[in-house]
Amino acid sequence: MKYGIIGTGAIGGYYGAKLAHAGQEVHFLLHRDYEYVRQHGLQVDSCDGSFHLDNVNVYQRAEDMPQCDVVLVGLKSVNNDKLQSLLPPLLHAHTLVVLIQNGIGVEEDVQQMFPDVQLAAGLAFICSAKTEPGLVSHQCYGSINLANYSCKDEALMQTVVDEFRQAGIETGLVEYHEARWKKAVWNMPFNGMTVAMHTQTDQLLKNQSTRQLIREQMMEVVSAAQHLGVKNLDESFVDKMIETTDAMTPYSPSMRLDYDFHRPMEIYYLYTRPLEIAREAGCPMPKLEMLEAELRFLEADLIPWHVSGTR
Amino acid sequence: MKYGIIGTGAIGGYYGAKLAHAGQEVHFLLHRDYEYVRQHGLQVDSCDGSFHLDNVNVYQRAEDMPQCDVVLVGLKSVNNDKLQSLLPPLLHAHTLVVLIQNGIGVEEDVQQMFPDVQLAAGLAFICSAKTEPGLVSHQCYGSINLANYSCKDEALMQTVVDEFRQAGIETGLVEYHEARWKKAVWNMPFNGMTVAMHTQTDQLLKNQSTRQLIREQMMEVVSAAQHLGVKNLDESFVDKMIETTDAMTPYSPSMRLDYDFHRPMEIYYLYTRPLEIAREAGCPMPKLEMLEAELRFLEADLIPWHVSGTR
Repeated sequence: MKYGIIGTGAIGGYYGAKLAHAGQEVHFLLHRDYEYVRQHGLQVDSCDGSFHLDNVNVYQRAEDMPQCDVVLVGLKSVNNDKLQSLLPPLLHAHTLVVLIQNGIGVEEDVQQMFPDVQLAAGLAFICSAKTEPGLVSHQCYGSINLANYSCKDEALMQTVVDEFRQAGIETGLVEYHEARWKKAVWNMPFNGMTVAMHTQTDQLLKNQSTRQLIREQMMEVVSAAQHLGVKNLDESFVDKMIETTDAMTPYSPSMRLDYDFHRPMEIYYLYTRPLEIAREAGCPMPKLEMLEAELRFLEADLIPWHVSGTR
Repeated sequence: MKYGIIGTGAIGGYYGAKLAHAGQEVHFLLHRDYEYVRQHGLQVDSCDGSFHLDNVNVYQRAEDMPQCDVVLVGLKSVNNDKLQSLLPPLLHAHTLVVLIQNGIGVEEDVQQMFPDVQLAAGLAFICSAKTEPGLVSHQCYGSINLANYSCKDEALMQTVVDEFRQAGIETGLVEYHEARWKKAVWNMPFNGMTVAMHTQTDQLLKNQSTRQLIREQMMEVVSAAQHLGVKNLDESFVDKMIETTDAMTPYSPSMRLDYDFHRPMEIYYLYTRPLEIAREAGCPMPKLEMLEAELRFLEADLIPWHVSGTR
């Protein structure tokens, strides 16, 4: 199978390099780092064993890439409008596009752009960063869950799972809605609250008032998801998320890093969209609505030279 | 009538000085500024006309003060436990104690300390600050509403109103619950949000997301108050508060100043107590609950050397 990577950063760069390192044919789209990687290859500094790829299939323009069987999209969701032009050259009639992105609603919107394409969600549990040109620094975790959104070819989904596993990536195959909403249970409280309070996960849990608030925000997501018919999700999952986060080292979620580095925050798919879905279903999430407003304020106030969200 | 002032700061200092300037007998309790004011008197720099009081009745200890007919309490509510020792020397059988303080529940708690004392609420609409020893700087507004909490002597209430007016203070006599909750409509959103977002009133209203949030928070207070039987309070009052604030110059409410100067914030009576009352009445205020949690976090995180609230 041919793999294509759109968004060769912390996420796309890591999973693409792992697949290439295991012998898969992988084609990387690069922007600023194109020249560097073409000359020097791709380095992954990893807690699971570092490695270097010497000869990487790199491209500066999507038009120059071959049609692929699987495309991994590692773009920030704020840039999804670019898929309009980046994706078509890589597609053949049966290409599977895997959106390894945060939030709720990305698949629905990309499907509207490309009604016939086969889509899956990729839910990555990983701490990694693109720290220098051609260098992915992978600190911990690394597993990924794949969820079928509109892929009619179940064998293809399973093949992708198998090839990820052969590349040494811990990979699960999960139900789409359950997976997206479960991830939102952690993502919605912690991403925004670490930005609004200029802090990290551990401090929010150490303070009894914000610990309680985080729990209530998580329960808002659980209630909305239950209302929307999502299965296998109740208060025990909230307990588990709090426990897991208690056990983590102090952590800055991606939105906190985006904010700190004055990059656009993924407010639209992490907040606006799921809040809208929940409200329309008659199960609003008031505390997360307030968090969205605070983020919109901070975004406008502190980084006026950036536009956030795809809408 | 004899007036006693406990808490000779921006509020107690201003109203006490205005009364003394108009010829009333006023006795001031002072702490750090005692020696200065004893020697140099009290200066009021005011937008309505500045004046100086040469010979001021000042005391360092409540025990040395005479019994008074009216006591104005201008303490921050975080210090109300001190009333236990400060108030008794000033009380006779018919003393009226006016709590010129922020929040909901101060009268109830002071009444529990002193079951037989006659209490009133004082709701000040004033921008003033004690900028130096013996100097009250009064920038704008200055009116006060008095509300009867437990004063059986209606003639006494009216006399106080009359004497305030004779002193050139715009003074209203209003219904207690309505007045306290109406003030909370403005106080609860703006005090906390200017702290949480490190901003001022105008910026919160300029941003469409926080403007909407402020409105929703105000509506939470209106709904809770209506639920508690408060009259003459509906959405039109929210419109009026937003309009009024639009017309104000950029403003930092008292809690923002307390936070900036690392003084304890009045979280208990401005948030904890009214939130509890609303929750118990079956009409919770979720967005203001979240704001309380954020304030508790900021309080613990940034000023660990202060204790906030009386509880």
